[in-house]
Amino acid sequence: MPIRRFRMTLAYDGTAYCGWQRQRDSISTVQRQVEIAAGIILSHPVIVDGSSRTDSGVHAQGQVAVLRADTTLDAERLRRAINSRLPEDILIRDMAEVSENFNIRRAKHKRYRYLIWADRDRPLFFRHFTYHFYKDLDIQRMQDACRHFVGQHDFNAFKGVKDKRDFTVRTIFSCNIHRRGPLVIFGVEGNGFLFHMVRSMVGTVLEIGRGHWHPDCIPEIIASRDRERAGPTAMPQGLFLQWIRF
Amino acid sequence: MPIRRFRMTLAYDGTAYCGWQRQRDSISTVQRQVEIAAGIILSHPVIVDGSSRTDSGVHAQGQVAVLRADTTLDAERLRRAINSRLPEDILIRDMAEVSENFNIRRAKHKRYRYLIWADRDRPLFFRHFTYHFYKDLDIQRMQDACRHFVGQHDFNAFKGVKDKRDFTVRTIFSCNIHRRGPLVIFGVEGNGFLFHMVRSMVGTVLEIGRGHWHPDCIPEIIASRDRERAGPTAMPQGLFLQWIRF
Repeated sequence: MPIRRFRMTLAYDGTAYCGWQRQRDSISTVQRQVEIAAGIILSHPVIVDGSSRTDSGVHAQGQVAVLRADTTLDAERLRRAINSRLPEDILIRDMAEVSENFNIRRAKHKRYRYLIWADRDRPLFFRHFTYHFYKDLDIQRMQDACRHFVGQHDFNAFKGVKDKRDFTVRTIFSCNIHRRGPLVIFGVEGNGFLFHMVRSMVGTVLEIGRGHWHPDCIPEIIASRDRERAGPTAMPQGLFLQWIRF
Repeated sequence: MPIRRFRMTLAYDGTAYCGWQRQRDSISTVQRQVEIAAGIILSHPVIVDGSSRTDSGVHAQGQVAVLRADTTLDAERLRRAINSRLPEDILIRDMAEVSENFNIRRAKHKRYRYLIWADRDRPLFFRHFTYHFYKDLDIQRMQDACRHFVGQHDFNAFKGVKDKRDFTVRTIFSCNIHRRGPLVIFGVEGNGFLFHMVRSMVGTVLEIGRGHWHPDCIPEIIASRDRERAGPTAMPQGLFLQWIRF
């Protein structure tokens, strides 16, 4: 029986986890939970490779990961079996067998969403899934700021200090913000994202929405390549990895 | 300074609580949490009276309660002060001073909602707010069943055994069910509800939706006054007390 490869689409509530990426054994991460659950079903050690290293507290509706398995189960049975062993805050939504040609490092298009709870009262049912930010926000200015992110740019100014990658050019396909009731919803699509990049984009757009900065400062911040020029990194709990395309 | 009375509208995520009603000191209930938080702000012992005794695990968007307070604060300042001392899963949405004539026992109209997660996969982000029930459900049959609840009836057959009240006649103003994506949403309004009444109505309607019983069995179950004839009590986490009018 040859080893088979399966592509999984995963959703998780990141509240309880120190992010996606496996760390020391004593630290609970989503990757580790999936490896443990799959290992129970497959009766062999399992390594799962994810496409995005979501941070501590960040959620996913469509993380993608690859699993190598020595099994005769079809993809759907394997999916259900592993789901039955996963904690209630992690779910495999889809599973399909893929060839050796499928490369988890070659994502072409990712979408993130960030939810801001822009009401005076703190969020209740949404408290684990939004960032509470109650200041007068000018949505039109924020929308103008978002437009400046679209295109191919060097996003070094929006890269968290822990990211040691030198190549910091990324292409943003779309970036929008709108209000729906108490929520302000920021959505961004691109060919890839640096560490903390979406959250520092949100932190910057919030500064602009409050009136502290002008929307046209975005091209200047990008040109500066200086993290100190961009806004603060917004809290993790508002961020969702929505989907990934290959 | 005379003692003043305030009417509060409360929302809570009931997941972590043994229901609304105060019990022994060692048991965490919503009422107790509100009394503790208000007591810190007011610097005197506080008793809070609620309109509905929601069960363990049941949520509220609009519970109503009365607070007696020796304070010079206006209602909005008092609301914000107590909110700042409440746990993150309880929130006072509204507060208004009321006269001695306001009687918390005299609710005229209450609305409950019950959320069923009718998808094969278990709920993830909705896991604390829905009951996972994945069987083929005939929504039209369930709608037909709901209509039979409307009107003034003796709901003894839908009363939990712990409810010792003899007067079991209640008037249901409306009762509906519909599907929205993976959710099946049951809504009911009435002048009052017995212990476990909404949940046993839902359990009965689910039996009808699965095809086990006919919608016309509802009038027979009501006429029997026999709890054994109605369906099971549906799980608490799908139930929300939406609002109360006086």
